[in-house]
Amino acid sequence: MKNTFTYKTTLLLALISYSLFSYSQDIYQSKRVSWLEKAETNKPTLIVTEKKPVQQVNMVKDADAFQGWKAVRSAPIQDLYKESFKAKKTAIIDFGEHITGTFSFSVGILQNTPDAPLRFKLTFGEVPAEIMTPFDPFPEGSLSRAWLQDEIMTVMTLPATVTIPRRLSFRYVKIELLAHSSYDFNISDMKCDAVTSAATTPAPLLSTTPQIFKDIDRVGLNTLKECMQTVYEDGPKRDQRLWLGDLYLEALANYQSFKQNNLTKRCMYLLAALSQPEGWLHGTVFEVPEPHPQSGQKLLDYSFLFTSSLKDYLEATNDRETAEDLWPVAKKQIDIVKKYVQENGLMDFEQANREWWIFFDWKDNFHREVPLQGISIFALRETYELAKLLNREKEVAELPALIKKMTKAAQKNYYNPKTGFYTGLLNDQVSYASQVWMVLGGVPSKEQAQKALKALPTTENACYPGGPYMYHYYVQALINSDLPEEARNVVENYWGGMLKKGADTFWEVYDPNDEFRSPYNFYPMNSYCHAWSCTPVYFIRKYPEIFQK
Amino acid sequence: MKNTFTYKTTLLLALISYSLFSYSQDIYQSKRVSWLEKAETNKPTLIVTEKKPVQQVNMVKDADAFQGWKAVRSAPIQDLYKESFKAKKTAIIDFGEHITGTFSFSVGILQNTPDAPLRFKLTFGEVPAEIMTPFDPFPEGSLSRAWLQDEIMTVMTLPATVTIPRRLSFRYVKIELLAHSSYDFNISDMKCDAVTSAATTPAPLLSTTPQIFKDIDRVGLNTLKECMQTVYEDGPKRDQRLWLGDLYLEALANYQSFKQNNLTKRCMYLLAALSQPEGWLHGTVFEVPEPHPQSGQKLLDYSFLFTSSLKDYLEATNDRETAEDLWPVAKKQIDIVKKYVQENGLMDFEQANREWWIFFDWKDNFHREVPLQGISIFALRETYELAKLLNREKEVAELPALIKKMTKAAQKNYYNPKTGFYTGLLNDQVSYASQVWMVLGGVPSKEQAQKALKALPTTENACYPGGPYMYHYYVQALINSDLPEEARNVVENYWGGMLKKGADTFWEVYDPNDEFRSPYNFYPMNSYCHAWSCTPVYFIRKYPEIFQK
Repeated sequence: MKNTFTYKTTLLLALISYSLFSYSQDIYQSKRVSWLEKAETNKPTLIVTEKKPVQQVNMVKDADAFQGWKAVRSAPIQDLYKESFKAKKTAIIDFGEHITGTFSFSVGILQNTPDAPLRFKLTFGEVPAEIMTPFDPFPEGSLSRAWLQDEIMTVMTLPATVTIPRRLSFRYVKIELLAHSSYDFNISDMKCDAVTSAATTPAPLLSTTPQIFKDIDRVGLNTLKECMQTVYEDGPKRDQRLWLGDLYLEALANYQSFKQNNLTKRCMYLLAALSQPEGWLHGTVFEVPEPHPQSGQKLLDYSFLFTSSLKDYLEATNDRETAEDLWPVAKKQIDIVKKYVQENGLMDFEQANREWWIFFDWKDNFHREVPLQGISIFALRETYELAKLLNREKEVAELPALIKKMTKAAQKNYYNPKTGFYTGLLNDQVSYASQVWMVLGGVPSKEQAQKALKALPTTENACYPGGPYMYHYYVQALINSDLPEEARNVVENYWGGMLKKGADTFWEVYDPNDEFRSPYNFYPMNSYCHAWSCTPVYFIRKYPEIFQK
Repeated sequence: MKNTFTYKTTLLLALISYSLFSYSQDIYQSKRVSWLEKAETNKPTLIVTEKKPVQQVNMVKDADAFQGWKAVRSAPIQDLYKESFKAKKTAIIDFGEHITGTFSFSVGILQNTPDAPLRFKLTFGEVPAEIMTPFDPFPEGSLSRAWLQDEIMTVMTLPATVTIPRRLSFRYVKIELLAHSSYDFNISDMKCDAVTSAATTPAPLLSTTPQIFKDIDRVGLNTLKECMQTVYEDGPKRDQRLWLGDLYLEALANYQSFKQNNLTKRCMYLLAALSQPEGWLHGTVFEVPEPHPQSGQKLLDYSFLFTSSLKDYLEATNDRETAEDLWPVAKKQIDIVKKYVQENGLMDFEQANREWWIFFDWKDNFHREVPLQGISIFALRETYELAKLLNREKEVAELPALIKKMTKAAQKNYYNPKTGFYTGLLNDQVSYASQVWMVLGGVPSKEQAQKALKALPTTENACYPGGPYMYHYYVQALINSDLPEEARNVVENYWGGMLKKGADTFWEVYDPNDEFRSPYNFYPMNSYCHAWSCTPVYFIRKYPEIFQK
């Protein structure tokens, strides 16, 4: 087994080397096999739990419901199992919670001898509208339609147990009869072998915690649990894989809840083992059929989060061996800053933007110049902090001066004392992200930070966050700026807003002003259980004093 | 293994007894387990052969081609495997012959990292039009749409080998891309693990046999081979199961070709073991999940063919033990005659027609009164012949008188000396089937038979056969009536007609006047490889002297 792994790994690395590194030096060459083995050693066991549906529902049009559809109990599940499905033809089943796993059901004979195959269409949805929105004609410009969870199954002989081959992520299942013969039959025994690697029970919150935060914490834990598979997945429906930005946030929530830190370790080792020969990390990597990266991907702001992930891990676990082992990778990422920082102390946004994907948030018409400067300074500070923890300050002795220079440059060029906002030189857009990343980079004074952050909600046309990922940094910036009440309000109103709209797990994208917003031009494509939205778990548990009102 | 089988069998029989026999005496109770065990013992091994496609084709509209579509070579198959299927999006593949088995193909990476699933639709066709005719909207009144061989497959990760779960029966495959992402990929390694239990090589025909009969024999052998699975199937696409009428004809062809007579033995034992408690045979039985009958089915004319099947088997194999073992079942079927024969020697057609399915042929507006009388006399004669072979004439000593009486009654009531045709009392339709079954029942003199049969083709509005099943009996009647030239011409023109229209295997239904005719209201539902059409193999090989011109 070990030999096989090593053999496969070697093959894989040979392949990666061949395809990606053929013209370059691989700076981690001597380390990759060992890193991949450590990733494999820390692969968690998936826990399988058999889940059964709780009721039949009708999906009812309701303008007040999320995306216009509400699930309303119609009958007990046992009624479905007893009646003729040849007559009924369609049903919607509710599992009562968001689950991820392998779905199966049985088809039995009610009357006469089955003499022909049956054909079913099954549609799985994380939210009600996903079940009711036709997937075809499929809009141009979206991701692969195959992410959508509708499957057509032919059942050749009865009785049968039908298992959908792909792993599914859902609460609701619509089953439709597409073809039948004259004999009568029923469906029954719907179930899902649900999987997660979350194996522990997080500590209860303080009993004095208000119900709203208990509820938000519960949904956040469900979100995290569903995304904890053999890696931290971004979403169990889509993309089903490890992204560095999600890892950073999931790890934060995990330290405060399940405390399964080997998963964080595995993910960091995977990312390190599969990094580019020049030393840059990929934004995302895949586990199957063999571990491999999204070839050539350069996701700038995610790269900077590796160091923070490693530092947090070291602080949580005291696993100095891993921190030492991966330190070169963390340190390497700040070369990105060094490459793009200009004489004047500002990052060359235009140049970086041509050469990297600079993400920060799913948001249209959002300008990323100031956030880039902020996260660059943040990355330098975090790297220096990690170096200090490892007694390796000498290796990065140049950082304090660079941090100072870049901070000064940001303050000089981006801060507008009249408005109290940080805005870019290329575009004067006032965005939450700009203020947030200046705060997280430690650029403004506390007073400046508070002024900017407090002014945002009442500033017309301020570019607000597109989704929970950016909202996380916003809350952290509020906390860092000693604005606990504002932080609490954002958690209560934003994540609580999803909760009020029926969220079983928190969503990839949520704009309170537009429930149909989708970065993929089709809202059923959105992931409705998305790792980066789980961080209220972290906030509520790390800062309990903030969430007592 | 043996214990498991016995246990399962016992369970099964308990179930059958409970559901079907609860209010009746089971006359074969002491025999069923042993019969089912003999069926199982004689289950043939399936031979698996890997088949690969031979070319890519375009389907071209052509009014002269069968059902309006012709397959035209477009490119070598290797071209498909090399090019981007993301760009190509659809292809039609030709395996060059009719095959039955498990289809698979591979999906490989051409460029960039796969980051999303793919979705394919595959459509399998026995004939070109099946590939090109939209299945939806699906016409009312047909069989289950699920018989149609289109499957939708989601491929979650690459590289992948995709296997369609159901067994397929086809020559052509259309593959269409329904969903993809931005990365590029190819498809390759299409193959089919083809299955048949036909394991021997039939003897070559006389070298002097004209090419047309060599060709018809070849296509007939392919048809039989494809239908020889773990039972004689009626058609490998549809219905994929043992029917008594098909068994009778497949066995005839098999004695002259593959000579795998244990398959005939197995099928007779299956039918006997699963017969009704009163002793009647079912028209069709199923093998999976456990052997079981089409509950309650009463298919009158098929029931009469069991005796002939057993007699032919005994003559071909000398396996007297089996013949003795199954003799009670054969003998029992003539009780049907005894039940419906009237004082005047005629079968009570109306009564029988109310209580049984009387088939004979897929043909609209076809009157079955005279054929019923004919096949009833035929069954009596065959039973008496079998009794003689087994020295059991005393058990059926009443038959010669009954045969005589019924023959006389038929001649008196149905024969019209003016026209020379046999027509019914209830309807004066002149049909091929009426003349044919009078001949096979031994009713007319040779001269009368010849006169009737020779007059049919020039008789306006004579109800001609709807498909190969009835054509078989027509040819046999011609041979029995010493009309070898006419028999040869029917084989040459009818089966040769399918051949000229591109048949790789002979069809379930073929009306030279209407290529789109379907008993199922939708011609793609027809089976284009159907056991009952294989019998030119039997005629050409049993009567070689007839087929030398």
